[in-house]
Amino acid sequence: MHLTLHADYSLRVLLYLAARPERLVSTQEVSEAYGISKNHLVRVVQTLGRHGFVEVRPGRTGGIVLARPASEISLGEVFRVAEPDFNLVECFERDKNTCPIAPACGLKGVLYEAREAFLGVLGRYTLEDVVKRSRKDLQDFFLPAASARGQ
Amino acid sequence: MHLTLHADYSLRVLLYLAARPERLVSTQEVSEAYGISKNHLVRVVQTLGRHGFVEVRPGRTGGIVLARPASEISLGEVFRVAEPDFNLVECFERDKNTCPIAPACGLKGVLYEAREAFLGVLGRYTLEDVVKRSRKDLQDFFLPAASARGQ
Repeated sequence: MHLTLHADYSLRVLLYLAARPERLVSTQEVSEAYGISKNHLVRVVQTLGRHGFVEVRPGRTGGIVLARPASEISLGEVFRVAEPDFNLVECFERDKNTCPIAPACGLKGVLYEAREAFLGVLGRYTLEDVVKRSRKDLQDFFLPAASARGQ
Repeated sequence: MHLTLHADYSLRVLLYLAARPERLVSTQEVSEAYGISKNHLVRVVQTLGRHGFVEVRPGRTGGIVLARPASEISLGEVFRVAEPDFNLVECFERDKNTCPIAPACGLKGVLYEAREAFLGVLGRYTLEDVVKRSRKDLQDFFLPAASARGQ
């Protein structure tokens, strides 16, 4: 059981922006800061933009910035948008289910309850909380941009 | 975010056995009841046997049976054994982590808390609870064995 890369990277983008409030940032910069694929990040940023978490300003001087204060972005809300598949088991999706006992099985409700508990915890934290829970020198851990490395 | 097949199938095997207490059951029978691969189930049964959830009796007249009463098998316990990867994100595993900010990031603790909430719910239910929460005609939903279908 683990998060998809899409959800993982969504959180990384938001955390990067929250650690640098008010500053326009390029997707390239985020990809270099974490050492991850820019191609994948482009799709992540589109999702975050479409759901009003980031504002995407086009053009050469454009970039991305948080669309709301970090204190108003709940992790639970981000997860529900960024994690495309919260269907823990196949019977959570009627169309895809092949398990014959699904209509009678008592396990589904328990798994639903566990999933809601998971999301409930995330719903109690905002992006600002995550920044506050991070070390004060968080910024020093991001990888330097290629330009800063003389490339 | 979804369970691995291994965890999913582990629960199915245990539920099948709990619905038929005291009866020796073959892996073939379980695979036919759910319409799933027997090869995969063999490995699942080995895991369940190794961790004391089922007793595997060898030979032609052998089969599997719950090693303990269903009321003494906690779903949380099954999950911790059957789900091989509860590392929601790569930084949960120091050896596999590639995220540069892991030592400073405040997100990890929140995700840990969410994972524990998930497992906490499962720890509150036993296999017996799942049978009780299932419909009384649960057994009618299992697919008939090949022999019963005249194959």
